Amino acid sequence: MLPAPFIEPFSPPRRILMGPGPSDVYPEVLAAQAKPTIGHLDPLFVEMMDELKALIQYAFQTNNEMTMAVSAPGSAGMETCFVNLVEPGEKVIVCRNGVFGERMRQNVERVGGVAVVVDNEWGEAVDTDQVASALAANPDAKFLAFVHAETSTGALSDAKALCALAKQHDCLSIVDAVTSLGGVELLVDEWGIDAIYSGSQKCLSCVPGLSPVSFSPAAVAKLKARKTPVQSWFLDQTLVMGYWDASSDGKRSYHHTAPVNALYALHESLRLLAAEGLELAWQRHADMHQVLRHGLQRLGLKFVVAEACRLPQLNAVYIPEGIDDAKIRKQLLENYNLEIGAGLGALSGKAWRIGLMGFGARRENVALCLKALEEVLA
Amino acid sequence: MLPAPFIEPFSPPRRILMGPGPSDVYPEVLAAQAKPTIGHLDPLFVEMMDELKALIQYAFQTNNEMTMAVSAPGSAGMETCFVNLVEPGEKVIVCRNGVFGERMRQNVERVGGVAVVVDNEWGEAVDTDQVASALAANPDAKFLAFVHAETSTGALSDAKALCALAKQHDCLSIVDAVTSLGGVELLVDEWGIDAIYSGSQKCLSCVPGLSPVSFSPAAVAKLKARKTPVQSWFLDQTLVMGYWDASSDGKRSYHHTAPVNALYALHESLRLLAAEGLELAWQRHADMHQVLRHGLQRLGLKFVVAEACRLPQLNAVYIPEGIDDAKIRKQLLENYNLEIGAGLGALSGKAWRIGLMGFGARRENVALCLKALEEVLA
Repeated sequence: MLPAPFIEPFSPPRRILMGPGPSDVYPEVLAAQAKPTIGHLDPLFVEMMDELKALIQYAFQTNNEMTMAVSAPGSAGMETCFVNLVEPGEKVIVCRNGVFGERMRQNVERVGGVAVVVDNEWGEAVDTDQVASALAANPDAKFLAFVHAETSTGALSDAKALCALAKQHDCLSIVDAVTSLGGVELLVDEWGIDAIYSGSQKCLSCVPGLSPVSFSPAAVAKLKARKTPVQSWFLDQTLVMGYWDASSDGKRSYHHTAPVNALYALHESLRLLAAEGLELAWQRHADMHQVLRHGLQRLGLKFVVAEACRLPQLNAVYIPEGIDDAKIRKQLLENYNLEIGAGLGALSGKAWRIGLMGFGARRENVALCLKALEEVLA
Repeated sequence: MLPAPFIEPFSPPRRILMGPGPSDVYPEVLAAQAKPTIGHLDPLFVEMMDELKALIQYAFQTNNEMTMAVSAPGSAGMETCFVNLVEPGEKVIVCRNGVFGERMRQNVERVGGVAVVVDNEWGEAVDTDQVASALAANPDAKFLAFVHAETSTGALSDAKALCALAKQHDCLSIVDAVTSLGGVELLVDEWGIDAIYSGSQKCLSCVPGLSPVSFSPAAVAKLKARKTPVQSWFLDQTLVMGYWDASSDGKRSYHHTAPVNALYALHESLRLLAAEGLELAWQRHADMHQVLRHGLQRLGLKFVVAEACRLPQLNAVYIPEGIDDAKIRKQLLENYNLEIGAGLGALSGKAWRIGLMGFGARRENVALCLKALEEVLA
């Protein structure tokens, strides 16, 4: 027998999380998660799931029946959309203006689809004119895929206009709302979004690990009309929905064991969002962003993204000349328990990403962040 | 705007979970999970992950470098093994003696493999002679896949003998240890298991949602020699390991946001297992099973599985003639807060599944279960 390692209980410090996520988790969410585990087929749990579905529908502003939480992080939510909807050989226009657009392209290729990439610079929004041209040039395209809020840069794209273009060209839209949900305006039904996924750990201020998703009736029809089986068993929505939606006889069929306690946490975080109200939450993110923006600019820091398409909840600023990226972040973490995000991909070593997400978007966090940055940059 | 639903906080009751999982969660694990969320790239979190890897290696009794927890439930752990190792056209001998063997077969087909099924009756162990014949008859087979402990029936198969057969025939073994890990003897390195997955919510008594997995050096070599890309981005182990294992420069690369708090929980549950010691935990499961078995037999209940291959941690018993399955389980749940499991698949409506898993395998649970069953069956 290999010997047992002797390991102490893990005692994480209380960090202030102002990176690109996970964000500061609501205390009520941590408490909800620690409630007693019950069975995933317990009638009381099933009632909780019905409430959770209604809460996800509210957050997405949709009446879509196929609305649920994937039992895995946002990347799995992304894969859920592509693996269920795109069949081998089908063409997808993919907008790429950061890390997550590129990840979408990789997903298209892994399901055997054909990706036509519309590139914009890192930090720019997706250009609707370029997308219109790509759609016109590819009349056989079946999907338009784009990231609403690019977590790698902090750029917000015009989801409403892009989905309208998709509709004009008979394409289904697949939208990454990982960082946008709860932080900026997002109206799934009104904008005609067909498939959308998000993550629990950004503006919902829930623990990481779950991905809310929603499919429009048109997306469901596409899924049902598939000629080939969904290549993933775990993410096959036709199977998963047997658990999330009671069939005609009121029974739920077992698919996989739901992450019970994580779903308690998501229920609580969405409940808090509903209690605040989406519009007030969006306004709070915008307001906190203004306070942070003024402070960062007073410190001489320059934004990566132009004001017109800047996300309030993710503030990417260039690291000043001569400043040691890692050293500054280490000081913030060790001396102030403050986490800000490093640059990702093309912005690695060049920018910091300061998150103001969900419960993290409040005055005390902004004040701490500004003062700590002032001190470590002095 | 669609209106916000008004929903109260969810307050689950304290159930006693004696079904097929989730099992009773250690109080320490629930408490660990509620500790403050920190970043998935925080140096302290990364240290915790190194400890977690050592703890998973201990539980599996392996030195395999590629050992980690998939950020999703056991079904995703299963898919991780098949999607990374099996390439299109490759032949897999799949042993099927319950629900999860059949799920393995579906996984093989979804990755484009060719499944050769060795069937045994529900409730029987996998027959090693039949497997030997199938291996002999299929010299082009590349894998042998089987379930160590069938959760749908409670049958234990001889993993050691099966893996030895696989080796004789130059096949890699893929083993489902969802219900066996922590509950019965399991020696990954000594038995020569090549790919194994488990779940957090059975004999580890952690919250549901994570899947410990481990690949032998031979499995890693097979993965590295692939001619085709892994069809899943989320489950691609070559990408995931960039996060779980620091590369030569000591940096971890971002793949997806780890389910931070769920990993705290798994760390704590495996720590408790290591503190007890695997052999004592196995013995405790065996001892509690004997007490339960005597009691169930005194109540006239008959086991589905023959004694020689009966799992201590999952006791499937036939529902007596004339007894209303759903009514009894409802009474147990509502009057005693006791959950036992329904039958699954071929045993649906015909059997109950009584779990004695991890923290659930203790005298007070057995006593309650026996007395409650005596009362509701009277």
